[in-house]
Amino acid sequence: MRSGIDGDRLWARLMAMAEVGPTPEGGSCRQTLSDADEAGRALFLGWCEARGYGIRKDRIGNLFIRRPGLNPEASPVLIGSHLDTQPTGGRFDGVLGVLAGLEVLETLDDAAVETARPIDLCVWTNEEGCRFQPAMMGSGVACGMLDLEKVLTARDCAGIALADEIVRHRYDREAAPRLPVADCYVELHIEQGPILEAEAKTIGIVTGGQGIRWYEISVHGEETHAGPVPMALRKDPVPVLMHLIGLVQAIGRLDEDARCTIGKIHLSPGAINVVPGRADMTVDLRHPNEEVLDRMHRRLMGGIEALRQSHRETDLQACLTWHSPVVTFDGALIEAVRASARDRQLTHRDIVSGAGHDAFNLARRVPTTMIFVPCREGISHNPREYASLTDVMAGANVLLDVTLARSSEGQPKVSSLSV
Amino acid sequence: MRSGIDGDRLWARLMAMAEVGPTPEGGSCRQTLSDADEAGRALFLGWCEARGYGIRKDRIGNLFIRRPGLNPEASPVLIGSHLDTQPTGGRFDGVLGVLAGLEVLETLDDAAVETARPIDLCVWTNEEGCRFQPAMMGSGVACGMLDLEKVLTARDCAGIALADEIVRHRYDREAAPRLPVADCYVELHIEQGPILEAEAKTIGIVTGGQGIRWYEISVHGEETHAGPVPMALRKDPVPVLMHLIGLVQAIGRLDEDARCTIGKIHLSPGAINVVPGRADMTVDLRHPNEEVLDRMHRRLMGGIEALRQSHRETDLQACLTWHSPVVTFDGALIEAVRASARDRQLTHRDIVSGAGHDAFNLARRVPTTMIFVPCREGISHNPREYASLTDVMAGANVLLDVTLARSSEGQPKVSSLSV
Repeated sequence: MRSGIDGDRLWARLMAMAEVGPTPEGGSCRQTLSDADEAGRALFLGWCEARGYGIRKDRIGNLFIRRPGLNPEASPVLIGSHLDTQPTGGRFDGVLGVLAGLEVLETLDDAAVETARPIDLCVWTNEEGCRFQPAMMGSGVACGMLDLEKVLTARDCAGIALADEIVRHRYDREAAPRLPVADCYVELHIEQGPILEAEAKTIGIVTGGQGIRWYEISVHGEETHAGPVPMALRKDPVPVLMHLIGLVQAIGRLDEDARCTIGKIHLSPGAINVVPGRADMTVDLRHPNEEVLDRMHRRLMGGIEALRQSHRETDLQACLTWHSPVVTFDGALIEAVRASARDRQLTHRDIVSGAGHDAFNLARRVPTTMIFVPCREGISHNPREYASLTDVMAGANVLLDVTLARSSEGQPKVSSLSV
Repeated sequence: MRSGIDGDRLWARLMAMAEVGPTPEGGSCRQTLSDADEAGRALFLGWCEARGYGIRKDRIGNLFIRRPGLNPEASPVLIGSHLDTQPTGGRFDGVLGVLAGLEVLETLDDAAVETARPIDLCVWTNEEGCRFQPAMMGSGVACGMLDLEKVLTARDCAGIALADEIVRHRYDREAAPRLPVADCYVELHIEQGPILEAEAKTIGIVTGGQGIRWYEISVHGEETHAGPVPMALRKDPVPVLMHLIGLVQAIGRLDEDARCTIGKIHLSPGAINVVPGRADMTVDLRHPNEEVLDRMHRRLMGGIEALRQSHRETDLQACLTWHSPVVTFDGALIEAVRASARDRQLTHRDIVSGAGHDAFNLARRVPTTMIFVPCREGISHNPREYASLTDVMAGANVLLDVTLARSSEGQPKVSSLSV
């Protein structure tokens, strides 16, 4: 049997991290740059410092943990993920990729393996995007897709500016975010979908990612009292909201790869006996084919225009707020993941990522891929999110293999570890 | 021409009161028992004290301003309304009835008219019900429909208990709320609907009130990530929400007197890229005929049961939280309002109140009626709420006439004022 990472230590750390920002239902709430998020990072950095790894931070709060290589001139292999969570997050989303990455560094140390290239374990700030928009912010800024000064003006729903949180946690003293010249980036993550579990596969060989488009839609009507005004005389945004939900659901039936979600709805002023003057909602559209995603976009916009015409008593506004194009991962890295899974006799299949990941930003700058492991019932962004120890270990070992293979390039080939 | 109230003073006070808790759009926000609500009451009580009227408060914060009568044994004539507002309230809802009532007392004083019965001007606590439920709380407790100890446990959305606000504003030192034995209750109010304006009538002779039923409906699904989970495998409450909106809209088409409103919708956890695990909404159903309102209730419950069967991926719960039965006002008082409108040559029509009012509670204990005046475009619970000085004066004069007629009973008839 091949040697590999210490699953018990990884599992214990996953469970310890989940107790930082715990939720009553057993999940975690470490929204980005909150006290809980910072406490989770401190726990993680403590583990890194105990092993003597170099720690670099940048001005958006990204963390880079370095295990040096033999060749100081060589560009590093990047691995990593994120530690922030949704308000009702689980124990594995993001955290697995970071803590398995730390296991990779330590496993190489414990086995006294020297690599040609340095290995940088990255922790990206604000992957989730629930507190501050846009999502995948830290990697987006580092990779040059987002402007630092612009994202610093983002505010959370309590009106707190991202810039103030950056100062509060002292990241403002650090260097400007900039992705180092790197050999590649590899991210281990739970699938966050039901496919691997349904097909009893342990490793998802991620070939790319769905395109994602986010929209904010508002319907302006006229606020009035719920009692006296006859239905026919109202300018109520709620019936328009009903048609919008129907429209989004219909787009979701376009083909089996289409994903359409309405995650937020808000009525103003929001009183039981007041006909709302305004309704706001968000739409999240995803598809692995950019052309089909375009078609979904046009159907949404066309449907909204039709509703605007048919409901002239209200004013309908829609705005595309974010677009993450379809991503195709690096062929050589995909094959390295496949080779590891095969060598370790792990069941596997190719898969397209339905969720957005920091790897999507990295893929525009360096050869990139991802490794998925199953999560129970496909549930994620939920306290019930769960991945088994066996699957977690399998994924971490594939990450170890690919990291070792890439960081050893230019050295005599090291195909397995002898501890 | 008949003499009457001082319209300029009434208007100036309406505008002064609107500046307490002002909103950027020109309306008022004096949610019940807030600092702004208390400041509005202080302004009002200052006007009352300046005229030397007796002031009584009770433990729920109701205020009673007394102008004595010649016969100390006689039961009082009650008039009044409320000073609290919706979060985005206007300048007339409630305030008109209170300040016009004060004008009635002062006009009688200025004309040195003595009445047999005392006149009590009532200011009811928490008519709106937007901060603490249920609505019409102060009159409900005073009239014995609501239990004081139970309503004191109500909390606002920030978790503040009504009981603590009562202590903070020192109403806890006052006597238990109890409606005095009274001759009658008359409340002047804006229509809060478009009918009087559309028909160019100045006075609405209110014959009764719509029955009102409030519901809280929740749809429980399963929260998960917006990307990976195929549409067919989701347990998304939003499509059920769509059908619920359609159901409520269909009930609103039952006949032209039906009123159906969805004033609040909340998705949990409420993130753009999370399929919500839960949707909550409120429904407000109203009808002037209790049998038809019953039918609306049964259609709502039947529709919800059908949705429960057709959407077994979610769990649907509905709860009737409040029921205010159809109200029929007192025949003699209705005729007194009609006589005044006719004598003053004011255009008028009979009307059913679409909104709930404290008068609905009073009607269960003493002979009661209301007087409506038009409000522009029927808009209420909105900063744009507006009633003209002419209509405000007309309504206040009808209130004066009815109050004088009732409070003079047993005395030689006083049919008009000679100032």
